[in-house]
Amino acid sequence: MQHDLDQTISLLGRTPAALNALLRDLPDAWTLRNEGANTWSAFDVVGHLIHGERTDWMPRARMILEFGETRAFEPFDRLGQLRESQGKLLGELLDEFARLRAENLRELRGLNLGQKDLERFGQHPELGVITLSQLLATWAVHDMTHLHQVSRVMAHQYREAVGPWSAYLGVLRCAAHSS
Amino acid sequence: MQHDLDQTISLLGRTPAALNALLRDLPDAWTLRNEGANTWSAFDVVGHLIHGERTDWMPRARMILEFGETRAFEPFDRLGQLRESQGKLLGELLDEFARLRAENLRELRGLNLGQKDLERFGQHPELGVITLSQLLATWAVHDMTHLHQVSRVMAHQYREAVGPWSAYLGVLRCAAHSS
Repeated sequence: MQHDLDQTISLLGRTPAALNALLRDLPDAWTLRNEGANTWSAFDVVGHLIHGERTDWMPRARMILEFGETRAFEPFDRLGQLRESQGKLLGELLDEFARLRAENLRELRGLNLGQKDLERFGQHPELGVITLSQLLATWAVHDMTHLHQVSRVMAHQYREAVGPWSAYLGVLRCAAHSS
Repeated sequence: MQHDLDQTISLLGRTPAALNALLRDLPDAWTLRNEGANTWSAFDVVGHLIHGERTDWMPRARMILEFGETRAFEPFDRLGQLRESQGKLLGELLDEFARLRAENLRELRGLNLGQKDLERFGQHPELGVITLSQLLATWAVHDMTHLHQVSRVMAHQYREAVGPWSAYLGVLRCAAHSS
C-alpha cells in the first residue's frame, strides 16, 4: 500500500506501549541476553530506538523541510545507544522511549504535512535522494524490524529448551537479515 | 538457557497485552492485510493463538500428566481459527485471547509442577517423544514466532513506501521460515 501519514502515526504511537507490555519487569534472562557476540539484547534494542528518536527521524524530517536535497543528513550512529544506555534500567529506557516518541509525534502532527510536503526530497548520505514520505514510512517499518528482532532474540534463549519442536518454529530459523 | 517454568509463565503472561497494545484500534490496513495468497494477517494470527489456547497447550500438558507417552496428542488444526474467527472483530479476538491465556496460566500455576513432572514424556503425533518441559518452552517460543510474524506482515504493507531504505530494513528480507 501507499504511504499514509495517519496510518504511519497510528502505528508509531503504539510501539512504545507494545514493548512496554512485552518487556517491563520480565526476568533479565529474557531482556538482557542476546544472540551471541556483537548482537543485541531487547535492552539494547530499546536503547537504539531511543537514539533514533533523538537523532534520526524528526531531525531528518526537519532537515528535509528546511534544506530539501541540498544538505545531506548526519550519518546515524548505530552504536550510539550503547553509551547512552549504560547504567540504566530497562524500565527507565521504556519510559524514555515512550516520552520521546510522544513528543516527536506531537511535533509531527503539528507540522500538518500535506501531500506536497510529503513529496519533498532530501539527501541521504548513502542512499542518495529520498522523500519525506519514504522517511516517515521507514520510521514505522524500523519499529517493526526491531519488534521482529526482539521476538527473535527472546525466542533464541529457548532454542535448546524446545527440543524437537524447533522444526516447527520459524523464528528459530530467522537469520536476522541485517545488512 | 535451560527451560525455567517461572520465566516461561512470565513471558506467556505478557503476550496478550503486547498484542493488544500493538493492534487494538489500529487501522484495518495494518491488521487485516496479509503477505499474499495463503498467508496470514495480524487478525488471523490472533485467531490462531486463541485456537492454541483452546486445543493445544494445556490440553496437551494434561495429556502428558495423565497418559505420559502412551497416548499421542490430537494433531493441531492449523487452520482451525479461520472458522472460529469468522465475523468477529479484532478487539473481540484480543479480549478472548487475553481471557483464555489468563485462565490457562491460572491452571498451569495451580498444577505446581516440579522438576520430575517437567521431565515426563509425551507422544507427539509427528515429532515422537517429547517432554512436558519442551511443550511449555514451545508455548512461549510459539508466541514469539507469531509476534515475529505480525511485525513482518505489518512491515510488508510498506514494502514499497520506504523506497531505497528497504536495503536497511531486515524485516523486509525475512522469508517467514515456516515449514
